[in-house]
Amino acid sequence: MADRIVMLILDGIGDRPVVELHGRTPLEAARTPNLDSLAKKGVNGIMDTIKPGVIPGSDTGHLALLGYDPYEVYTGRGPFEAAGIGMELRPGEVAFRCNFATLKDGKVVDRRAGRIKQGTDELADAIRGMEFDVDFEFIESVEHRAVLLLKDPTLGPYVSDVDPHEEGLPILRSEAVEGDEASQRTAGLINKFAEMSVDVLSEHPVNSKREENGLPPANIILPRGAGSVPDLKPLKELKGINSAAIAGIPLVRGVCELAEMEVIQVEGATGGLDTDIGAIMEAIIDNIDDHDLMLVNIKGPDLPGHDGDHQQKIDFIQRIDGALPILDQIDDTYIAITGDHSTPVTVKNHSGDPLPLTICGEEVRVDDVDSYGERSCAKGGLGRIKGTDLLNVLLDLAKKAEKFGA
Amino acid sequence: MADRIVMLILDGIGDRPVVELHGRTPLEAARTPNLDSLAKKGVNGIMDTIKPGVIPGSDTGHLALLGYDPYEVYTGRGPFEAAGIGMELRPGEVAFRCNFATLKDGKVVDRRAGRIKQGTDELADAIRGMEFDVDFEFIESVEHRAVLLLKDPTLGPYVSDVDPHEEGLPILRSEAVEGDEASQRTAGLINKFAEMSVDVLSEHPVNSKREENGLPPANIILPRGAGSVPDLKPLKELKGINSAAIAGIPLVRGVCELAEMEVIQVEGATGGLDTDIGAIMEAIIDNIDDHDLMLVNIKGPDLPGHDGDHQQKIDFIQRIDGALPILDQIDDTYIAITGDHSTPVTVKNHSGDPLPLTICGEEVRVDDVDSYGERSCAKGGLGRIKGTDLLNVLLDLAKKAEKFGA
Repeated sequence: MADRIVMLILDGIGDRPVVELHGRTPLEAARTPNLDSLAKKGVNGIMDTIKPGVIPGSDTGHLALLGYDPYEVYTGRGPFEAAGIGMELRPGEVAFRCNFATLKDGKVVDRRAGRIKQGTDELADAIRGMEFDVDFEFIESVEHRAVLLLKDPTLGPYVSDVDPHEEGLPILRSEAVEGDEASQRTAGLINKFAEMSVDVLSEHPVNSKREENGLPPANIILPRGAGSVPDLKPLKELKGINSAAIAGIPLVRGVCELAEMEVIQVEGATGGLDTDIGAIMEAIIDNIDDHDLMLVNIKGPDLPGHDGDHQQKIDFIQRIDGALPILDQIDDTYIAITGDHSTPVTVKNHSGDPLPLTICGEEVRVDDVDSYGERSCAKGGLGRIKGTDLLNVLLDLAKKAEKFGA
Repeated sequence: MADRIVMLILDGIGDRPVVELHGRTPLEAARTPNLDSLAKKGVNGIMDTIKPGVIPGSDTGHLALLGYDPYEVYTGRGPFEAAGIGMELRPGEVAFRCNFATLKDGKVVDRRAGRIKQGTDELADAIRGMEFDVDFEFIESVEHRAVLLLKDPTLGPYVSDVDPHEEGLPILRSEAVEGDEASQRTAGLINKFAEMSVDVLSEHPVNSKREENGLPPANIILPRGAGSVPDLKPLKELKGINSAAIAGIPLVRGVCELAEMEVIQVEGATGGLDTDIGAIMEAIIDNIDDHDLMLVNIKGPDLPGHDGDHQQKIDFIQRIDGALPILDQIDDTYIAITGDHSTPVTVKNHSGDPLPLTICGEEVRVDDVDSYGERSCAKGGLGRIKGTDLLNVLLDLAKKAEKFGA
């Protein structure tokens, strides 16, 4: 009996007709015999991750795919980034993404401090040593990136960024955008934090050495993307399932961490175009026996979408297609293949265009769609559904849903 | 780059199969080469303005098309009529549609006072001179119609009508239908207003003269359709767009006024079957350069729908079709063609049947629909969407939507 579920999320897979491809989308233009064969033996449709025309982020998109209403639980990106790099979070705490940046004569002259590669651990130690008004955690991440967590559950998340988001400008004063008192406190704290970071970092030996070597000093922390840690009910509690996730990027891992899924690290799964798709497929096979649901995000198609490179998107889609036959080894499983949002090469950013969706498995109402694409799937038996409904559809197929009513 | 939007709303366009048309709808039976050509180069679907099976009014329908949830913002027709004739409204004030009517021996013998054509300005002056418990505005409109605004934001809108809606009956006592205190105050006020209007109007020279001439006197004001002025966020603030509207009837103009759209008056656009469709099309071309969005309502198809006249509906649809080629002059624009509700000639009233929807423009996922009709569009690539989602879909296509999340 098919009673397990794999959600294969091809990040940014959806697209728009491309003139150079004679009006086809990259997915339609790609040679994808294995995806097509899944569409042929499955039931197909199109999906609005959040709702029609609404552009999902990777965070809000994956929240929706796991059945959470992003309008209820999402206030900002910070906490998902924080969870994604392994911070322990509690509901109500406020998290920020941060950059190490370069301040000169009162202006931000480099938002990434020359994409600093070394020494942020020592600089972060100095930050962690600061005497501050509330408990906080500060952890450095890749290159110039870091995450700040204010560990006070009475603070509000609705504050503007200190980061001016453009070089040559002075830092901004964070303000409470909704005017509520709890967020006003946060804004005051975060302004103070940025100022204090300058005091602590300016004279730090790591920076003195960088200046000697002609490198921009990492002499200020710029917080942005404030969000309060949502009180997500664990997926186990909501749906009664054991679930796991594979994702190359911290933001998506963070969403899955906060849903208390098991997050599996796969060697070679980088979230880049160099990712080892074969290793990801092997990891599905190795782990599906212990789980009712595996959510697997392959970031690749999103990247050439942002770059506007249709040929690279086609190439990457074909690489995914080539790796799919490994999945033939698993049976008793429903597989859903879709995306978290479209990233059209004509838009070079996320868009609200609906996504193709194929569901394969023992008892689906197979339709007559015979290829996996935006327009072919639109003719399928699923019609047009919402991302927030997808998990319920799959749990129902796999006989793991509970009746509502008598 | 296509970054502008025209929403062409063919009022009441949707219909049901008509026996005399061998099971076709008026739209399906009409010869519409231009609409068909737009369907052919566009993406198509069907749309439930509010939700499936819910019958929209012209007010709730247009609220939905502008992305507002009518269940949240709508309490009655009054304020939209008031805004449509140019009254200055503030959130919370309660507005009523009113009739000048004829009362005789305690009964309403003519709800329209013989469709009185002259003298309502003088009668309205007398009403405006009344000493009343709260500030109010009263403005006469076409023929027997008028609008009353109680300018007290502490009043409630949930009151029944004084108008008995049938001739030969006594006037009704307005009551608070939800029993709340704020609406009880309104009911008391409006009962008093109707009574006072009799005192003021009965002996008025305009009415004495009417009686001399054997015409029914306009000796009472009958308020109905109470609604509180909704606190609509302006479209500019919600979506960051400059928008304009063209509409023949005050009710639709009122919705657009309250959304703070620019309402453009087009000479010859009457809202009737005699409307100058060519002038409306020219006005689109003249104004699109200054706006991100133009909503254009053509009332015509609704009228023969109410009359049950399928041939007249076909004729009017064909006239619209004939005027469409003028729009070929604009480019860089997404055009959506749909309705606000169906008005089937078999129903002679609005219905909840879904509407045909075509969206044309640079980057749409063109499907294989080749004619504009209720059933042909249902096979298109958009599937079935809601009216409240349409503006988001169009803004996303035109790259004017903001990402929700990161």
